[in-house]
This record gives sequence, structure tokens and C-alpha cells, in this order.
Amino acid sequence: MSLNSTSLDLLANTIRVLSASAVEKANSGHPGMPMGAADYASVLWSEFLLCNPEDPQWPGRDRFVLSAGHGSMLLYSLLHLFGYKVSLEDLKQFRQWDSITPGHPEFGLTPGVETTTGPLGQGFGNGVGMALSQRMLAARFGESLFSSFVYGIVSDGDLMEGVASEAASLAGHWELGNLIYLYDDNHISIGGRTDICFNESVPKRFEAYGWHVLSIDGHDKQATYDAIVEAKKVTDKPSIICAKTIIGKGSPGKADTSGVHGAPLGDEELEKTLQALSWKGDDGFQVPEEVQTFCTASLAKKKEAYDAWQQVYTALEPAEAREIEKYFKREVPESLKASLLEAFSNPVKAATRNLSGDAIQVIAAEVPSFIGGSADLEPSTKTLIKDADDVQSDSLQGRNLRFGVREHGMGAIQNGFAYTQSWIPFSSTFLVFSDYMRPSIRLAALSHLQTIYVFTHDSFWVGEDGPTHQPIEHLQSLRLIPNLHVFRPADGMEVAQSYWSALQRKNGPAAILCTRQGLAPLERPEGFDPDMILKGAYRLQGDEDADLVILASGSEVALAQHVARDLSDKRIAVVSVPCLELFEQQPELYRQSVIPAAAKKVVVEAGSTYGWERYVGNDALLIGRDTYGASAPGEVLAERFGLSPDTVRTQILDWL
Amino acid sequence: MSLNSTSLDLLANTIRVLSASAVEKANSGHPGMPMGAADYASVLWSEFLLCNPEDPQWPGRDRFVLSAGHGSMLLYSLLHLFGYKVSLEDLKQFRQWDSITPGHPEFGLTPGVETTTGPLGQGFGNGVGMALSQRMLAARFGESLFSSFVYGIVSDGDLMEGVASEAASLAGHWELGNLIYLYDDNHISIGGRTDICFNESVPKRFEAYGWHVLSIDGHDKQATYDAIVEAKKVTDKPSIICAKTIIGKGSPGKADTSGVHGAPLGDEELEKTLQALSWKGDDGFQVPEEVQTFCTASLAKKKEAYDAWQQVYTALEPAEAREIEKYFKREVPESLKASLLEAFSNPVKAATRNLSGDAIQVIAAEVPSFIGGSADLEPSTKTLIKDADDVQSDSLQGRNLRFGVREHGMGAIQNGFAYTQSWIPFSSTFLVFSDYMRPSIRLAALSHLQTIYVFTHDSFWVGEDGPTHQPIEHLQSLRLIPNLHVFRPADGMEVAQSYWSALQRKNGPAAILCTRQGLAPLERPEGFDPDMILKGAYRLQGDEDADLVILASGSEVALAQHVARDLSDKRIAVVSVPCLELFEQQPELYRQSVIPAAAKKVVVEAGSTYGWERYVGNDALLIGRDTYGASAPGEVLAERFGLSPDTVRTQILDWL
Repeated sequence: MSLNSTSLDLLANTIRVLSASAVEKANSGHPGMPMGAADYASVLWSEFLLCNPEDPQWPGRDRFVLSAGHGSMLLYSLLHLFGYKVSLEDLKQFRQWDSITPGHPEFGLTPGVETTTGPLGQGFGNGVGMALSQRMLAARFGESLFSSFVYGIVSDGDLMEGVASEAASLAGHWELGNLIYLYDDNHISIGGRTDICFNESVPKRFEAYGWHVLSIDGHDKQATYDAIVEAKKVTDKPSIICAKTIIGKGSPGKADTSGVHGAPLGDEELEKTLQALSWKGDDGFQVPEEVQTFCTASLAKKKEAYDAWQQVYTALEPAEAREIEKYFKREVPESLKASLLEAFSNPVKAATRNLSGDAIQVIAAEVPSFIGGSADLEPSTKTLIKDADDVQSDSLQGRNLRFGVREHGMGAIQNGFAYTQSWIPFSSTFLVFSDYMRPSIRLAALSHLQTIYVFTHDSFWVGEDGPTHQPIEHLQSLRLIPNLHVFRPADGMEVAQSYWSALQRKNGPAAILCTRQGLAPLERPEGFDPDMILKGAYRLQGDEDADLVILASGSEVALAQHVARDLSDKRIAVVSVPCLELFEQQPELYRQSVIPAAAKKVVVEAGSTYGWERYVGNDALLIGRDTYGASAPGEVLAERFGLSPDTVRTQILDWL
Repeated sequence: MSLNSTSLDLLANTIRVLSASAVEKANSGHPGMPMGAADYASVLWSEFLLCNPEDPQWPGRDRFVLSAGHGSMLLYSLLHLFGYKVSLEDLKQFRQWDSITPGHPEFGLTPGVETTTGPLGQGFGNGVGMALSQRMLAARFGESLFSSFVYGIVSDGDLMEGVASEAASLAGHWELGNLIYLYDDNHISIGGRTDICFNESVPKRFEAYGWHVLSIDGHDKQATYDAIVEAKKVTDKPSIICAKTIIGKGSPGKADTSGVHGAPLGDEELEKTLQALSWKGDDGFQVPEEVQTFCTASLAKKKEAYDAWQQVYTALEPAEAREIEKYFKREVPESLKASLLEAFSNPVKAATRNLSGDAIQVIAAEVPSFIGGSADLEPSTKTLIKDADDVQSDSLQGRNLRFGVREHGMGAIQNGFAYTQSWIPFSSTFLVFSDYMRPSIRLAALSHLQTIYVFTHDSFWVGEDGPTHQPIEHLQSLRLIPNLHVFRPADGMEVAQSYWSALQRKNGPAAILCTRQGLAPLERPEGFDPDMILKGAYRLQGDEDADLVILASGSEVALAQHVARDLSDKRIAVVSVPCLELFEQQPELYRQSVIPAAAKKVVVEAGSTYGWERYVGNDALLIGRDTYGASAPGEVLAERFGLSPDTVRTQILDWL
């Protein structure tokens, strides 16, 4: 096909001018990447990307991921030009308070923004998750509805990040032919020319991962067009199109320098740039009529695809449409709660990782959008959905994702699933390795994604594996992440309610921390109301006017009950604390009734004690572990670390 | 060369038997990897690895990194067999309390253990740092002293981890011919066969990184020997020898299954294994005399190399020996403290990142072992040593490391430098991206390494870059890591003392958090003693019996002084808190004098407030930011978030 190169050139220059002008006006931002990427991005958006700005959530749309999130003005310019609700006024408000055009793209804030990006490598992984998501939907509901592509722009920085390497290897393994990345190979990063630290052969590396690799001049629009056509044809390999570009192209004085990466051009250079581009507008916030016409025509073609999709969709049997709806609503039947609780109605001694595994089976049976996997630890984290296949390129109807030892890639790919808003994805590893995927967890919380993390082996009770495998600070440091709910259930009923809460929560992630070791079943009062658990902390035994309140979570709740039995001459209440974030949401009166001001308070939790003072004040006894663990059987460590029944009892008596 | 294959076979089988027996006795551990790796490891240790068990710290030694740390019994067996102070009794105490044979190797605990490994991918990165370290020492002091090799064993899991990908790319870039990894390609991981998630071409990937790639049957000793000889010859590329092995080789019933990865063989299968290996000992904790003789002969050859090295060393000019000593003592002249303080004797308005940059220049001038770099952010983090070259393959005398956008690889490589105990390495990125390298920071703290982290852009004051780039929970979550000192200096004098403290601390890491934005200089009393800063928290103004104490760190200290001026009708003390970990070490009397029980207390810190109650109780006013930031100029955010002078003053007055 021959392209309308005049219009495309003008479109690209309009992107350059809008981007440079907005950065200039904000006096802050990254003009270089949008200016360098404008040419191939114009081709991608005008000739390929299927979308409908009137219906940004259209399930059949192609997706565009700007992994190089610092080039946000590229995206905002494109969204404006292609009819999304991003006005010129919005562009003028780039990086200002309360605008929809923040420094880096934020999911949920700006129509058409598919992912929150900026922390490098994350978008790369998100796109992999999105592409696999589409393939899995296609396996369930057919390619006529779910044959869309995921396009993305990735930068040098993205490709240097390990999270992208992990995700790239998996994308090759999964043969994601519906994933097409344009690699903006501009040779410049903040530190200067990339050859000071990046001499590897990117094409060869991606071939090694099993990708289809193409190379073009990223300013050659016909070459871009041809490459994308070529990439679309290869359906069993993800494609990376290595596009050599000149950062800041269009700026006569600053193109091809690191100076244009992250700072405004400056008045003078912007002026020169407008001249060099033969810009006809009064200022830099205008769209030439020809560009408007061109984009409108492009949108009309996209609309045809949209209408065709809608025809297929509306012609579906109601039952099938209903099934699809279950995914896109991430529907969880009300009856599931009872099923979950029922599964644990006969308390037994068990590790909560096993109870969690049981819960996963119950959920999987009733929630088709519930899928997930672990970083090569299924046998340990007990997260395999038993009644389902692995997700592999030849079994895309499967539900078990095999991430390999790639925690960070797992987190980013999981976020990709969650960004599509059609899955409830879980992931799993040992709690101590939550650190490996922390940047992705933070982004899930920041972007209000429904993701679930199953972190097992949640304390020094890991035992012999030693301090490298024993979490100490991790429980508290997860609690520190805003908008993340952290559950540490103590028995089957708490496991059930933790999952129930996480499944209900559509706008934020939850972590469920489980033990490796077996736990004695809790002693619960007759007629205990399981919904007390959803209050985040509740009195398990004893009265409001107890003299001593022992607060504990997870494995330490049974321990607290044990100690309370040993100290039966005292009036003791035991409070289980499965989720501090939920407890924070309770009325003050309730909180005071659970942690009464008058009582003496003890906290027992096998991890860092830092932070507990917020809940129990400075006069409480905090029994935990604030330094690293050691390699020995768990019981030995409990004794040594003062977290066995005997040592806890002694500490309490000494303190009293 | 033709090998003594009878002895080598017996050596390998001895490793198998010792490893399987120790795991059996502990009833916990990983027999499969040691049994599978025993053949090539025997060749490596007997024919190549230069070391002296009598002098494990010999600076000229080769280093052995077991990145697959779960195979710790391989290492402990080798250490025992090659004369290190690891006895058969120690092997019997595998994974027991207080033993020197913990579940995963721990640096500093066991003679001959060069790195703490277990969290996968880390050892891979450590080895890269060690190899570069040797090259840099060679560039300074000659190859006759520093021409040693770094050998390592890396597993499937290591190669899946992104941190290893990052480090591999850098190793290729740096042309580290002195780095030789054996890739234990056994096709089995915890989840089962690796082809469920790992189909990439590892050889091709490493070729893309610029590595020299070899492939062997890992049970063929002659092939192993030849490959290592070949690898040593290629001096301008790191080598990876892909060694196909059978996990658990020797076990008739469990070899080549995931069952042998992480669980004991079981009595019966161990018995069968001893039979299959024609084991002649009474039990599994014996070393055949032939093996003893063979290892002794091997050690004698190693000793020759050792003696030759010592001859060269003792023949050095005293001045040169003295220079070398400065590295291996990580020597910091006492005079540096005065130089640092002198550099900031004229307080000016400045961002602490700039002051940190100034401090780095002062230190670099007096401490030759002080080197470092950033993850592609030098211009922003101000961490370039101005009077030094980049470290590149052709300028190894340089001091500035260019890590690219590879935070995690940076952290692991930095640890590698620190493990050699001959450098004080620093690294740098934005505080929010400390999450990307958190697993390496934790390992530095756990392993008592002297590493320094310069984390700039330390609060929402980053401004327009928005919430993806604005740290909230990071300050507190770093404070949670045991044995990490976290500094947040408020002015040049505090910057100087933060670095001074970090340089003095030989057995643990320090993080120094700096602002992006300019700070007003603090008002300090006449004759202020700078050593007060080293107490971690100190009263900057006001008296011990003040009615109101405002505690703050970093950028909020000047803010606190500003507010105190505005409220001059009140008796206010301002306490600067550069380092809570140092403050914790002060006598209680001092701590009470700084934070008096009687006073009302306010904390102002631009980050999560969680945890502060430990220091100021539950009646204090905590002014911080507990949820995500936003994209807007810093001043606007300060106003909106209640962290501008006016809004802080108002909050205090309302609260009073």
C-alpha cells in the first residue's frame, strides 16, 4: 500500500510541535522521545491501531503500551489527534495539578491510557500480559471477537531492565504473535550515548528468546508500514521492530543529544524547531486542518472494524455473551462466600498455604476469570488450579501460568492481565521474594488494579533454608505500600475471608500471606460470625474489659491462644489481626473495643515489630523478630527467637 | 592434558555421597544439584581453582561463586575436601542451629564461602562485580598480582532472573574474560521440566550479550577440562560453559526428576545410591583415602601458585604495597572527616543531591577504593567522580561505573565488589527505584557488606514526574531492612557526616537519601559540634524543656525551622533526625533529652508516617504523606499535601 506521506509527515510534525510545546509550557518533561518517535508512531496509529475513542473500553480494541512512559506527550498528542477526550487545553495543562496529562501516563486517569508507565521495563511486561490475555480470550470465545494486537513502544532503558528480559523470554515461549513492539533505538539515554553501557546485540537477544526481529529506519514511514504488516503476518512469534531513530528529531540544535531527553528545548530552540518544521500555526498548540482531516478519515476506517465487531458480538447466543460478561465484570457469585466458608467448616491442623490451595480450587470452580501461577514454586505455594491445564501456546484454554523463576516479570505480566479488566489474576512466590517484584506490586496499587499475591513461607518458620529465605521486614514493608491490602490469615476461615475480600475488591490489589508450617486450628467461640474477620481485627476470645490483650496475626494467633490457655489465671483477650488496612477502615468505637485503651497489650508477630506502636501504643510488649533469621528447624528457631509458647509466656510474665 | 579420571570419578562420587548424606541427616535440603554438578565441579576445583585454604582471604585467589545457593552441600563438600576449616562434623550439622553449614551459603560465616547466595540471580551478578574488581585492581597494580579468575555455577533459575540478564549484558560490555560460569543445564526446576517456561536459546542469548559460549556434557570430565582451558584463553569475553547434566545423578530411582531437587532422597533411595556408586564407607560421611591423596596433591599445586604470588607481593616497593593495602583495608584517612566538613563550611541554598555530589569529589580524592556509579542517572543523582574516567574495558583505571538502566544488576554487581573487601562501592538511582534493587540491598545488609546507596529525588518534591517517580513508603521501608543505616541529611554538614559514617562502617551498608530540590541552609547555633549529627538525631534549636518539639529529616528540617520562626511566641525545639538507626544506639538518657516525654511532639517528614509512633508516641502530630503523590510542580504539591510552611503551621496550630 502506498501511504499518504504528505499527511503523515504533517501528522508527525504536529506531534513534535505539540509535544515540545507542552513540555516548554510545563517547563518540565521529555521532548526528545516524542519527537524521535513521531514518524513511526504516526504510521502505527493512523494505519493500524484499531480503537474507538467513543468507546475506549471496547474489548476488541488493539492496545497501545507506551513502555517508555517519559515520552507521555507522544501519547497525549496521539490521544488528542485521534479523538479521545484529551483536549488542547488538557495538553496545555501537561504536568499540572489535577490535569489528565500528568508527567507519566496514569491508567484510569486519562481516556485511552492503557497502562501506568514510567518505571522502565514495566510496560514491556504489561504488554506481554495483555497479549496473552487476548489469546486466552480467543481460545475461550473465538478469534472473531478476540484477535486484537498489542502494540508498544519500548526504549533502550526498557530493554536494559531485567523485568523486560524476563517478560521477553516468556512472550517468546508463549509464541505471542499478537504482540508487536517498536524498539525506539535512539542511542541516547540520560547518561549520554548508550554505547557506554549497552553494546549487546538486541536483535540477536530477541531471536534467542524466540521473537521475530525486524529492523528499520524509524523515520521511514513506508518501511514502518511494511514492517508492521510483516510483523502481523507472523502469528506464532512476538515481533520486535528495531527502529533506528534520532532523539529530538526536528530540533535543529538539540536533536541526537542527551540534552533533549529530559528537559525543555528552551524558548529559542523551540522557535528554531517550529521554523525548521515550517510550522504554520500561531503557536505550538494547533492542529493543521489537513491533519485533522487525515485523522478523521483514519478513525472512520477504525470505526468500520468496531462496527463489524459489534455485529459479531450482538449476534452471540445470550449464553455465550453472558460467559464473556463474567470475564469483563470479573464476576464473583455471591454464593462463593458460602462455598469458601463451607470448605473450611471442619478446622484441622494445616499450613495456611495448603488452606489457600484449597480456597483456590473453590474459587476457580466458580470464577472463570480467576487465573494465575507462580514463579516456579507451585508445589510449595500450592497455587496450582487442579482442574485446569497449563497455559501454553497450544493450550490457551488453560488457567495455570508457569512463570519460571521470574518474579518481576510475573508481576508485570500479571498487571497486564489486570489492565485489561477481564481477569482476576493471582501470582505467587515465597514472601521473601516479594522484594523481587515489589515495583510491580506498587504499580498495581497505584493503578488500582485487582491483582492477588499469594506469598507463602511467610516467616522464619521456613526453618532450615535460613536467613536468605526468611522474611523479617516484608510483612511491614508490604503494609507500607499505599492501597495494598495485606492479609495474614490464621486458619481456614480467615483464608476464606481473605480471598473473599480480595475478590470483592475491584480497585486495588491484595496480598495473602501464608505459612509453610502446619498450624493448630483456632478455638473459635460458638456461633462465631465469619464477617468479623472482614473487620480486619477482632476479638477471638476474652472480653472487652480483659486485663491483657494479645494481638497476633497468622501463625501467631494459635500461639497466642496457647499462651492464653497457659495463663488462664489472668483475664486475657486474644485479638486476631488478619488485615490492618481493613481494620483502619472501621469506626473508632469498634477499634477501641478491640484494642481497649485500659488493657495491657502484647503483640506477637513473627516479623519486624516496627509500626505496631500505631495500634497498641508505646507501653505494649512487642514480641517479634527485628533482625535476620538463621538456618535451623523451625521449632528450634521459635525457641531461640522467643516465639515458642514457653518463651512467649515467659516474656509476658516477666513484663507484667 | 590427560586427567586422573579414576580419582576424579571417586572425588565426584564422594561429593555426591556427602551431599546426599548431609541432606538426609538434616532431613531437609537440596541433594539434586550437588549430585548433578559433582563431575564438572570436581574438575574445576582440582584442576583450576587457585586458592589456599590456610589463607582464604588471599587477594590473588580465584573465586568460586555458587549462584545456585540451594546446592550449598556441593560447596560445603568441596570446602571440606579441599582443606578448608569445614569438618565432617560440620557437614553433619548441615542446616542446624549455630552450625557453619547453613541451608544456603552465608558470607562471613564459613571459611571459603565468597558470597551469600540462595535468592536466585544474585550470585551471577556478584561474580560480575568480582571479575571487574580484579580487572580494575590489575589495571592499578599489574596482572602479576591480579590475574585471577572468577568461576561460578549458575542454574536455570539464575538465568531466568532479570538481575542475571542485566549483569550478563554488562559483563559482555566490560569484556570480562576472567569470568567463567558453568551453567548447570539440568532441565529440571521445582515446577517440573524447565521447558514448560524456558524455551529460549541460552547460548544465543549469551552470544548476543558478547559472551564466549561453550557447550559440554557436564558429566564428561575431559570435556569440562578442555572447555575451561578454552574459556581461559578468551580474555576479552566472559565465558559461559553450558553443561548438560542430570539432576541427582547417582540416585538410581530419583535422578532426572524434580523430586530430587529440594527434598532428601529418603533412607531407602540413599541406600540404593550408595550401592549404585559402589560406596565403600561405613556411612555417608567418609572420604576415601584415594580422594584425600588426590586433593592433597591438587592443593600442593595450588600452593605453588600461592607462594609465587607471595614472592611477587613481598618484592613490591613499599610504596606500592602501601597503595594496595589502602584498597584491602578500605582505608579512610582520619583527615577526611575535616575535609568533608570543611567543604560545607559556608552553607548555601542547595539540593542535597548536589551537596552529595560535592562530598563524593572530596572522598574520591582521598579514598582510592571509593568507586561507583548509577543506573543511567549520573546527571540527576550527581554521582559522577569528576576527576576520574569511566570504567570501560579499555580504561579499567577509571572509577565511574556506567550501569545503564539496570538497578538490580547494579546492586548485585556492587555487592560483588564489596564481597572482595577491597572497595567501597557506591551506587545510585532515584529513591523510588530503590525497589528495583531491594533484594540486593537486603543481601548486602544480611552479609555485612560495606556498600553505599545514594538515592536522590527522595520525596514528592520530585514534582512534575508524578506518582510513579515520587517515593512515599520508601524511606520507612528502607528503615525496616535490618542492619541498613538510612541517612536523610538536611544540609551539607549532615551530608558530610552521613558519608563519614558510611565510610567508617565496614560491616554494613548505608543509604543516603538526597533531595532533588534546593533547600534553604539550616540555622545552626554558634559552635555547633558536627558530631552531634552522628548521634542520629539531635536538637538543632530550642531547649530540652521546650513545650513543642518538631522532629524532621532531610528537606523538612529547614521547613521545621521556618515554621518555628513563624511560631516564635511558642517555646519550640527543632530536632533533626538524619539517621534513626544511629539514634537507636544512643543511651536512653540522650534519647529522652532529644525527645522529652513532657513536650508535645510533631513529626514532619515527606513520606509515610507509619512507624514514627515508636519515637514520639501516639499523641504526636504526624505530618507526612501516606498515599501516592501527583504530577505538578513541587511547591503546588507541598501546598496541597500540607507540607508547605503555611500548611504545616496551620496544622500545628489547629492541633495545639
